[in-house]
This record gives sequence, structure tokens and C-alpha cells, in this order.
Amino acid sequence: MLKPSIVTELSQIVGTRGMIMGQSQLQTYECDGLTAFRVPPQAVLLPETTDQVQRILRVCHRQQIPFVARGSGTGLSGGALPGEDSIVIGLSRMNRILNLDLPNQQITVQPGVINANVTAATAPHGYFYAPDPSSQTVCSIGGNIAENAGGAHCLKYGFTVTHILEMTVVLPNGDLVTLGSRTPDAPGYDLAGVFIGSEGTLGIATEMTIRIMRKPETVQVILAAFDTILAAAQSVSDVIAAGQLPAAMEIMDRLSIEAAELSVHPNYPACEALLLIELDGPEAEVNLQMEAVTKICKENGAWETRLAVDEHARLLVWKGRKAAFAAAGRLSPNYIVQDGVIPRTSLPSVLEKLNAMAAAENLRVTNVFHAGDGNLHPIILYDRDHPGEEERAIDLSLRILDVCVEAGGSITGEHGVGREKQCSMSYMYADPDLETMQRVRRAFDPLNIANPEKLFPTPRLCGERTRGAYAPHPLEASGIAEVF
Amino acid sequence: MLKPSIVTELSQIVGTRGMIMGQSQLQTYECDGLTAFRVPPQAVLLPETTDQVQRILRVCHRQQIPFVARGSGTGLSGGALPGEDSIVIGLSRMNRILNLDLPNQQITVQPGVINANVTAATAPHGYFYAPDPSSQTVCSIGGNIAENAGGAHCLKYGFTVTHILEMTVVLPNGDLVTLGSRTPDAPGYDLAGVFIGSEGTLGIATEMTIRIMRKPETVQVILAAFDTILAAAQSVSDVIAAGQLPAAMEIMDRLSIEAAELSVHPNYPACEALLLIELDGPEAEVNLQMEAVTKICKENGAWETRLAVDEHARLLVWKGRKAAFAAAGRLSPNYIVQDGVIPRTSLPSVLEKLNAMAAAENLRVTNVFHAGDGNLHPIILYDRDHPGEEERAIDLSLRILDVCVEAGGSITGEHGVGREKQCSMSYMYADPDLETMQRVRRAFDPLNIANPEKLFPTPRLCGERTRGAYAPHPLEASGIAEVF
Repeated sequence: MLKPSIVTELSQIVGTRGMIMGQSQLQTYECDGLTAFRVPPQAVLLPETTDQVQRILRVCHRQQIPFVARGSGTGLSGGALPGEDSIVIGLSRMNRILNLDLPNQQITVQPGVINANVTAATAPHGYFYAPDPSSQTVCSIGGNIAENAGGAHCLKYGFTVTHILEMTVVLPNGDLVTLGSRTPDAPGYDLAGVFIGSEGTLGIATEMTIRIMRKPETVQVILAAFDTILAAAQSVSDVIAAGQLPAAMEIMDRLSIEAAELSVHPNYPACEALLLIELDGPEAEVNLQMEAVTKICKENGAWETRLAVDEHARLLVWKGRKAAFAAAGRLSPNYIVQDGVIPRTSLPSVLEKLNAMAAAENLRVTNVFHAGDGNLHPIILYDRDHPGEEERAIDLSLRILDVCVEAGGSITGEHGVGREKQCSMSYMYADPDLETMQRVRRAFDPLNIANPEKLFPTPRLCGERTRGAYAPHPLEASGIAEVF
Repeated sequence: MLKPSIVTELSQIVGTRGMIMGQSQLQTYECDGLTAFRVPPQAVLLPETTDQVQRILRVCHRQQIPFVARGSGTGLSGGALPGEDSIVIGLSRMNRILNLDLPNQQITVQPGVINANVTAATAPHGYFYAPDPSSQTVCSIGGNIAENAGGAHCLKYGFTVTHILEMTVVLPNGDLVTLGSRTPDAPGYDLAGVFIGSEGTLGIATEMTIRIMRKPETVQVILAAFDTILAAAQSVSDVIAAGQLPAAMEIMDRLSIEAAELSVHPNYPACEALLLIELDGPEAEVNLQMEAVTKICKENGAWETRLAVDEHARLLVWKGRKAAFAAAGRLSPNYIVQDGVIPRTSLPSVLEKLNAMAAAENLRVTNVFHAGDGNLHPIILYDRDHPGEEERAIDLSLRILDVCVEAGGSITGEHGVGREKQCSMSYMYADPDLETMQRVRRAFDPLNIANPEKLFPTPRLCGERTRGAYAPHPLEASGIAEVF
């Protein structure tokens, strides 16, 4: 419980309009997109300026109060889940665009600005912001920085870290620092790179200067229908080996196609594996690339290749793809969306293992991939009303991560570690690797008040750390389906 | 002085062949490419395995012996300069290519492998390694990692940090960690990003997995002759604003052109400003881009645009550009090469200031730019035999950095901070920014034995830290001219 004197002090910083203490209102903040975990915070503060954030963190530091920064609350790994003793610092009111520097292709914004609004603000001038998580119409730039957010177009354009140039950051002790630089290859350590993807454990970014990119002259998307996932995957490898770099390459399997069809009617060809390739750039170039890409698909057995004829058709293609997870609800009363990464070349062997594992559990698994990046999103379908099925589904979803790591991959591509996968970190990293990260964490936050008990395995939550020793937990499909 | 027992212990690790103690041999290691500073080390060790590096660092840690890692010794900022009490760990014998994974476009090498040899090893398969410092035929991958090396083609392909996926690193206490990941967007902190460019202050990388890229089908270079630097610079901005991303865009001014002509006879057009634009990719695309780029140059007043007709002509164009610094010796008995970065749009105002400053000192300054990146290399020409001229040249070269920082830029684009510019760091960063970097340094190296007294300002070397308080020193042109 916060002492009354601290409540008073905090409310003086943000005003009574900027502080939430009522139990019912606090419920809004008790979880993020990972709804299986719910902990109401002690209080929620809604600062509007960097100065207010500094003053709040100085109080937290002096009183050793843990804090959790929160953007739009769309994260899928519980990064914004409060701790029992913590306050939440909601940044949604810091939603102003501060400066637009077109000649240098930069925009400076506050952390609560919605991802899609960066593109909206720059589109009239012919620019866009590249990282495009599927939640981009609701998720915030601050949250994107915390999670190093990706999206379908990261294949060509890179993750959030590629696009954030400079940040104003409030450290956990309230000090203000500038991380990164507006010029390339700045001297000293690249602490912007460490901060981005640190899931709120190193401080709070309150201002960020972002690279914007020139909108391509043309965007084209092609659908290629294959009889096997492997043929589609081989096409992806061949496209990259040919030196092409599409804006996006996505694979959906038959079940995902059916689900999307039931949900938003994208009129996909009915096939075992659908490969969706988007190309962008000057029109004449894109036409040439499209010829080459189409040829590669046909050589790998694509029996239908269909170019979206216009912008309406192209957006419908993407609507189907982006709806694929939510649409899993049409196939099964419950499901779990997993997020793992493998080397692209391991796809055949990993898929074979996954299918065998699913068959052994008598569970259906459908797959959607960011294929160019090797980022898998297996969706495990189950029915909670069948006794024991949920436990087997959770167990399978975690064992899938083991397979990803064993193939030389990773336990998460986009969704982050947060609370969900912190115990899996020991499976991916050796003790000295994790200890080095911890030392860096302590360099920023010696009191461990910035989003503590996240990201890293802790004895309390994970027990003795051993490879494969996950802490299973019930994942609730409904909360996961909205954003990914 | 090393105690005899420690000498014995170290020699047992690397063998007598792997240890240098003789004064004359040690002289080879008393400086790197910044030859104005010379300090002979206590000893030089030449390990051949990661295990040997670990054992050496355990001794250093136990005995608190400072160590300086050294690649090929081509660095320009004194990063490999020994300290008086330090040993040098030379990594040139760790020069093996360990694995070539073509399907995943990765190669694993030891730190002593020469930059150009990575491309040489992969070229027969159609691949190349992108970062191309002008010293690439002699500099090592380990040194490239220490300095986050760049090169003319970083405009399109990014600096070293973009291409290093995973490293085995020996920490200053001898512990072995893996930093980075072969998969994109790995969970946890991006410590590979911090390590790359840390100039040897966080440990020693002994194995690195590197991204290789598919060789483009076609490479074309065009020379465009302008009457003013500003017209050439405007063309660069217009090319980028048009959404084009050339592999390289370089500007040379009249003096640099003349110097190159005297030196390697590249047959450049005689003009006030030469813009060199290289495009690469599929041939049909490059042809289209070249049309667009040529049009932009002409619209900005290029009175000659000349396409290199074949590979021989193209290489001659680059030979001239890469010789530009060494060729300054044809113009003047002595010179200083500076390295600063500015926002591309500040080029007109910064150039105006530079010219006025040079005129006020009655000194000639010639300019070569990585124009796309805003990376300036002003070359200050002077004659040491004219009393006081060297001091004025040094002073001018440092004041140029002030102008870069004031324009929103940086004190170094490629050459690093090392010993040369550590006192300038206070001009670029505020105290809390530097203190945060220091805390991260201490997280890796609490005893401050890894390349100490480099990169950061120290009271001993820089006095009281104030903006603009540089520690001037004599730069010797001969050592700087070879590599840049």
C-alpha cells in the first residue's frame, strides 16, 4: 500500500486528473494483451510532460517503489503487467508530435503517439514510418520501443531499433539522458540499441526522434498457391538467394487460409500453402522484380499466381493475413498463438517435428509465418471443455519453443519476453550471458524498480534454472487474438 | 614492469613464440595509425585460441594488469595505443575462417581475419561482406568491430553493427559470453550493439558470425561535374528525397580532385565539385535508377555526367577517391585529416563557416565527403616549417569539430574516439549521458583494465570537462594518410 504522504506527493505532480486510485478504474490496468495474468497496480499516474515523469521517478527511487511504464497496453507477453507493489505510469497522454523535419527525414514525437499516426502525419508529404506491428492502429511508439516491435515489413525495413535515432530517457533515478544520435555511427556506446527492446527495465523514453522513409512509388502484392508448405518455403529461400529483397514474404497454411476466409473473405485460393509476397519501389523496378519472383514461385510448383489488381485488392489480401490469428476462433473454441524464430533453412525439419508433436498430442496446429525472417506463429487449437486438453496445448506450445532454440533460433520474434517467457530465457542463454545482461540492467537501475521481475528468469518465478524448465501458465486466447 | 612470475605465467599460456618482450620488437606495437602517440607496451601476447585469450585475461584480472586488444593496427584514433602499464593482446594469429553457411548467408571467422578476405572467401559463391573501410585490404574484422567501421558503401549497407550477428566475447574477467544472435530481434538486451564500437573497452571478441550479402548483378558508377559544392550537395539531397538509395555518394572538391589526379591519374573532369554516385542491383533496375540520378544531377547544373564504361574504368574512379587523402601530400608537406558528421541539410552553412575559418587562418582546407551520410573529411594543409602553422592547423581541425557538433552532428563518423578525441566527448555529450556509458563500462569491466583511459574524457588527460575543452596534440600526417 502506498503511504498517504506519497499519494499526496504523486498527486501533486500529476494533479488529481492525472492519478487513478479507484479499484474499478485500476482494473483497466491490471493486464495488457496477455490477459491470463492480472494484478491491479497500487496507482496509475498519467503524466503529460518529461518533467512530470522525472519527478515521479525521483519519488519512486527515493521510496523504492517499483514502476511499470505502459503505452496502449497491447503487448502480448505481459510486459506492462503490474507487480503487486508497483505503480503504473501510463504514457497515453504524452501523445504529441513535437517536430517534423522533412529535409532530414525525421520526426520527433512523444511516447504515447500511436504507431499509425506517425505515418498519418507524414503521409501527406510522401513519407511513412516503416515498422508495422499488426496492432499499429492502436499500439504506441513508446510500447514499440520497449518491445522492439516488428511487423510483416521488417524483412525489408528492419525492426523498431533500425528507425529510432535518438531518445530522451528518464532513468530509474529520475536523471535525464539522451540515448542515440541523429547522426550515423555516433561515438561512445550505442545505448539506444540496448534501451530499445529492454521491455521497460531501463527507464522511460519520453521523447524520440524517428527516421521516416519516402513512400515507394508503387506497391504490389502477389499470391502464390502451393501444394506444400515446403515448396512455398523453398520459394522464399530462392527469392532471397536471387538477391531480391521483398517488402514482405508471408506464408499461411490451409487451416489459416480457411479461417481467414470464414472471417474476412479475402478470396484466397484454396491451397495447402499460400505465399504472399509484397514488392515496393519505383514502378518499373517493381514490375521487373515481380517477373523474377513469379518465375521463382512457378519453378517451385506454384499452380496459381495472382497479382492483386488494385489497391483495394491489395488491402484485402493484407486484411486476410492480419486477421489470421483472430480468425482462429472460427476453427476452435480456444487457441494459443506462439511466437518463435528459426533459421530460414531449418523450416522443413522444424515443421516436420511440429507436425509430429501435434499429432502425438492429437491437437491441431495451424501456422502463419513471417517467412522471410524465419518468424513462426504456430497457433495451437484446443477445447478447454475437453479435460486435460488445455494443459496439453500449453505444454505443446512451450515445447515448440524448445524446438526453435534447438534449431538455432529464438523463443520470441516479436512479442517479447515480459512475464510470459522469462523462464524460457535460461533455455536460450547461458548463465554468463544472462548475468552480463543483469549487470547492464543494474547499471541503469541498481534498485531494481523499473519493471522488476520481468524479462529475466527469477528463482521465485522459475525455480532452479535449467534448460527447458518453463513455468507453464494458462494463456487465455481471447486476449491474445486481438493484436499480434 | 611485469613481475617475472607473471611473465612466466603468460608465456606458459601462449608459448615463447607467442610472447614479445624485446624492446625493439615492442616498438612495432607502440602506436597504431595515429602515430603521434607512442607508448611501448610491457609485453605483447599473440594468442591463437579463445581459450588462450581467456587465460590471459584471467591473469590480467587477478593482477589488475591493463590490456589493449589490437587487430592490424590501422586505427586512426589511437584505440590500440598501449598504456604505460599495459600489455597488448595482438589477434593477428587468430585469422581462420571457421564456417561458411551459404544457405543462411553467414560466415563465422576469428577476429584477425582481414576484412577483404571475408569477401574473398565468399565471392566465388556470389557473396560479399558489405562494410568497406578504405583500409579493407589490411584491417581486421576484430578491429572493425571495435570501431564499428564504415566505408563509402555504408550509405546503403550500414556500418559494421548491421552485419555482425553473433560474437563470442571474453569479458575482462575471463568469462566467456555470447553476445547477439543469429536470429533477428533476439530477446533480452542487444549487447552486441553495445560491444560493437566500444573500442576495446568491454572485452575481446574471439569469434564472430557475420552476415554476407548476395553480390549485385550490376554495379555502375557515374561522375558528375559541378561548379559548386553546394550544387553537388543539393543533388545528393534530391537523390535521397526521390527515394533512391545509391550504394555510395561521394563528393570531392577541386583541390582533392587535383591531388588525386597528380597521384593516381583517375582522369576526373576538372571542376569545383565532383559527385560520384554508385548504383548496384539487378541490371535493368540499375539502368532505370541511373537515368533518374543523372537527370537530378543535370537539373542541379552538372555540366558533365560520365558513366564509367567498364569495370576497369569503375575501379579507376574508386582508386582516385580512395587515394584522395594520401594524395594530399602532393599539395602540401603536412596535413591533418579530420572526421566529423553533420546533418546532410546543414552542409551549405557548415561549409561556409569552414571556409571562413580557414581563410581567417590563411590555411587551405580541402574536402572529401561521404555525402550521403553527412560524413565530412576536411583535410587541413599546412607546412610545419612555417613557425606556428602546425598549431593553427591543429586548432582549426578541432574547431571544425565544434562546428559539426553545433550543427547537430558528431565529432567522428568512422575513425572513432580512442585517444585522439576523448576530450571532445564532453563537447558532444552531457555529463549524465557519459556517466550512463561509464556505468555500462563498469558493468563489463569493474576494474577498468580493458583499454583504460580511452574513449571517455578523464580528468588527468582532459582537465576539467567543459564544452570545447579539447586537449590539442600534434597529429602526424604521415601515419594518417595511409588508411581512412
